[in-house]
Amino acid sequence: MSSPAALVGPAPPARSVRALRADRCFLVPVAFSGLDKEPVEIGGVEVVIENILNDDAGDKMEALKAKYPGLIAVDYTLPAAVNANAAFYVKHGVPFVMGTTGGDREKLLADAKDAKHFAVIAPQMGKQVVAFQAAMKTMADNFPGAFSGYTLSVTESHQSSKVDTSGTAKAIVESFNALGCGFDIADATLVRDVPTQLAPVPQGMGVPEEHLLGHAFHTYKLVSADGTVAFEFQHNVCGRSIYAEGTVDAALFLRDRVEAGAGEKTVYDMIDVLREGGMVTN
Amino acid sequence: MSSPAALVGPAPPARSVRALRADRCFLVPVAFSGLDKEPVEIGGVEVVIENILNDDAGDKMEALKAKYPGLIAVDYTLPAAVNANAAFYVKHGVPFVMGTTGGDREKLLADAKDAKHFAVIAPQMGKQVVAFQAAMKTMADNFPGAFSGYTLSVTESHQSSKVDTSGTAKAIVESFNALGCGFDIADATLVRDVPTQLAPVPQGMGVPEEHLLGHAFHTYKLVSADGTVAFEFQHNVCGRSIYAEGTVDAALFLRDRVEAGAGEKTVYDMIDVLREGGMVTN
Repeated sequence: MSSPAALVGPAPPARSVRALRADRCFLVPVAFSGLDKEPVEIGGVEVVIENILNDDAGDKMEALKAKYPGLIAVDYTLPAAVNANAAFYVKHGVPFVMGTTGGDREKLLADAKDAKHFAVIAPQMGKQVVAFQAAMKTMADNFPGAFSGYTLSVTESHQSSKVDTSGTAKAIVESFNALGCGFDIADATLVRDVPTQLAPVPQGMGVPEEHLLGHAFHTYKLVSADGTVAFEFQHNVCGRSIYAEGTVDAALFLRDRVEAGAGEKTVYDMIDVLREGGMVTN
Repeated sequence: MSSPAALVGPAPPARSVRALRADRCFLVPVAFSGLDKEPVEIGGVEVVIENILNDDAGDKMEALKAKYPGLIAVDYTLPAAVNANAAFYVKHGVPFVMGTTGGDREKLLADAKDAKHFAVIAPQMGKQVVAFQAAMKTMADNFPGAFSGYTLSVTESHQSSKVDTSGTAKAIVESFNALGCGFDIADATLVRDVPTQLAPVPQGMGVPEEHLLGHAFHTYKLVSADGTVAFEFQHNVCGRSIYAEGTVDAALFLRDRVEAGAGEKTVYDMIDVLREGGMVTN
């Protein structure tokens, strides 16, 4: 078994220490921010939030690297910070796992790839959701038109502050359309009102009250032209633990890649992490 | 466009003429049986049931072949007849689509393959169910262990006369187990009592009353260890039209293969039919 990886970052893993595989990694008790903030306690560990606008962030990072060999940065900061943060990790040779979306994605990938920098970059860190998404895509690639004549309906529920349709729903609808459904994503039902979210299935979404502010519920229903056949696919996520677990998996995957040394590929996504599934020690 | 295929057999397509693609095939108004039976009317066509125990079945088949070029036999007869029927089709050079299960399956496949006989042989003719099953298998093959720590529950409802767990459920549970669920198929909930079948979801299965005697409802639910993430997959089939449609697709697929001439492969399954999906004229 290889040496523990350390993680830095105010990220899902920091909020779900349960996800950490204690035999394989630990949380570095330091996070970076652009604001002055009080330390936070995470699973009995006090994590200091360093304001990197006051000092030289590079010096702080170099000090952390020296103190915690195998350090991997975890980045779930703001979309506006995506490209600058990636450049910072590259400059200091710190492998990173980035779940932050937005920014210039092409530049993000190109910068990391050109530098042969180790990174896992993925807009969706929920491994199981990614696996489901990939399975639907594979079905569409292999069996185009298999659901011709079927009518698709899509219902998704997220916290009221989320205005747009979820990116995951968009990707999955694309696969269903390749399967022959002809669905216009504008016809997806976006549930954002609390009474419907709370109401039990099938009247409502059955979201637990404590997760109203952080949930991602998706239902895809396919009905045959004559109404005799129905398929339904659901993925309902409450809170952040699935993302935390995926992040830890991504970090451990990345640590193994770093130890193996740079081959052709150094920039990965969650599909790569999933492919490794059978090799990860649980 | 190629010439119409003709179909023979007391099969789902005969019962769901709507599924026939009239521009590409038609139903031969003859079916074979081991009993004396009255003719049946199917979509305005009177189909004669020939008792092949009274006469020489081979002569009857040769006469049909002469009268209906491109004839394809459709076989949904009894498990006990599987191997003898296949030998009969091979002897008379009649390509066949066989949805009948049971019999000596190895011998069935070997006999057809050795003779380079054209056939589609599949225990499940519902194209969309097969596509879903294949998608779960691919997910398991590509991402072993992706659902480690998840708890699976399986509920299936079939007509009360069906005693055993459905073969489709067994196959799909195998994939979920490769994904890490560790489910014992003996723990599947088999709903066979009518009140539960009729009761609306989520208390019951929501089976329409007219389909009590012929339905196949399956629900697979996966819940993460901490209960924050749930996936649900359902495929609910009422009646036979999905099988009829799949049978017609299989027959048209087979006719195209026959016209293309024997290559390496002449015996196919529904995965082969599905792969062709994009090429089939709807």
